[in-house]
Amino acid sequence: MRLSLNQITTKGWSLPEAVQGCVDADIPAIGLWRDKVAEVGVAEAAKRVRDAGLAVSSLCRGGFLTASGPDGRQCALAENFSALEEAAELGTDTLVMVVGGLPEGSRDLVAARERVADLLGELAPHAGDFGVRLAIEPLHPMFCADRAVVSTLGQALDLAERFPAEQVGVVVDSYHVWWDPDLAAQIARAGAGGRIASYQVCDWTLPLPADALLGRGHVGDGHIDFRAMTDQVTAAGYTGWIEVEIFNETIWNSPGEQTLRTMIERHRAHVEAP
Amino acid sequence: MRLSLNQITTKGWSLPEAVQGCVDADIPAIGLWRDKVAEVGVAEAAKRVRDAGLAVSSLCRGGFLTASGPDGRQCALAENFSALEEAAELGTDTLVMVVGGLPEGSRDLVAARERVADLLGELAPHAGDFGVRLAIEPLHPMFCADRAVVSTLGQALDLAERFPAEQVGVVVDSYHVWWDPDLAAQIARAGAGGRIASYQVCDWTLPLPADALLGRGHVGDGHIDFRAMTDQVTAAGYTGWIEVEIFNETIWNSPGEQTLRTMIERHRAHVEAP
Repeated sequence: MRLSLNQITTKGWSLPEAVQGCVDADIPAIGLWRDKVAEVGVAEAAKRVRDAGLAVSSLCRGGFLTASGPDGRQCALAENFSALEEAAELGTDTLVMVVGGLPEGSRDLVAARERVADLLGELAPHAGDFGVRLAIEPLHPMFCADRAVVSTLGQALDLAERFPAEQVGVVVDSYHVWWDPDLAAQIARAGAGGRIASYQVCDWTLPLPADALLGRGHVGDGHIDFRAMTDQVTAAGYTGWIEVEIFNETIWNSPGEQTLRTMIERHRAHVEAP
Repeated sequence: MRLSLNQITTKGWSLPEAVQGCVDADIPAIGLWRDKVAEVGVAEAAKRVRDAGLAVSSLCRGGFLTASGPDGRQCALAENFSALEEAAELGTDTLVMVVGGLPEGSRDLVAARERVADLLGELAPHAGDFGVRLAIEPLHPMFCADRAVVSTLGQALDLAERFPAEQVGVVVDSYHVWWDPDLAAQIARAGAGGRIASYQVCDWTLPLPADALLGRGHVGDGHIDFRAMTDQVTAAGYTGWIEVEIFNETIWNSPGEQTLRTMIERHRAHVEAP
């Protein structure tokens, strides 16, 4: 099974609890979050995951590269160097990058996007040194102003392809890209270039909640055709982990064990043929 | 002044009230909605607008072409024939088309998009006969599941370009397309082909409200660079009306006169240089 638990899906669990949950549910991999890692310390987190025999499918997250001015730039670089170092120590080759939205008071999307390209240029060689790949995650266009000025897989690939494939890749996250009329072609392009660093899944459910960030559902609860998308990702040559990453208050308030059972059941029904 | 009031912006006003509001505020054009037209009848609505000396920049809206099955298809065609006839009688050359989302229970975006193309093929010649253009409006990708499977200007142009430019065009609505990394190129493409049937404006404001449909703000209240976008639309050769179309509960609860004053002020400050 290629299923991985992205740790945000069981937000109520500490890192040791999430690790134990995966072990108990026979889920072979976990995607870690930096805040949860920090609670126990990087060395201890790495040991826990290793001792449990879990693979680390990714570390979430680096990025936030759009701040203007030299201070914003230095701060973003320092933060991402730390994230790369942590990723390496945790034993993952993938640092998920959420690039950041428009800086406060700015309406200049073009300039914000240029800063992303500029900082990726600084970070990419360091990523290579750490043996970690920067995985640019296009977010749904509804997050363009406040979270990520990279909104489509094609745009993420335009950025990634400036750098060697082992330094910069992309994330295919179903929630963010499912609507894209150009999706099939861009997944094929990403695969042909060896750029798919991560495949994350959760479903598009309606209505959107009061906090639009938290509207994601279990696979199968919404409007996305996961079999079709997974076939495209597979045909593109991706054989890596399939991470379930869900931001949803109701799911966060459910017992973690139940969430993992649902994840496994939906994974088998909609994503990976048994 | 190229400003037009899209009638939904003053949702509390009847058609006669909106017409009078435009006259009082020296706004030279109005975009009508079919439900408001129906309240007074098409002939009476046409007379009111004509007697007031207003141009009708568009009729909202036709579309909803994605229903599956022969009944859904026939129903959609009949509805759009009526809308075309109304548009002609009201004296506008532009019928705004919101193409519809996924049918209930379906996850097949590809098929839904094919049905849109199919029905446009039926409607386009009739539009030509009525002297009205079908103006395909790409909606923001957050409305892909429930309102419009056409999500980008490029995708709308791919559809429109199958038909003569006088039969099928596109709407550039700032709210829906501002995030698109390919926007400048697609506006230029639309202009070069004579496909820009309408330019609508309102701003992207955050946070999104509980009903994501109602999150639009007055020009200048959000994150969109209207000067840049208007420059692109103008450089593409569009010289038509600039419609303000705002869905926003707070604005709907404000006095219409105040809304129009704000519209004019923001239009001058952010959209059309005096």
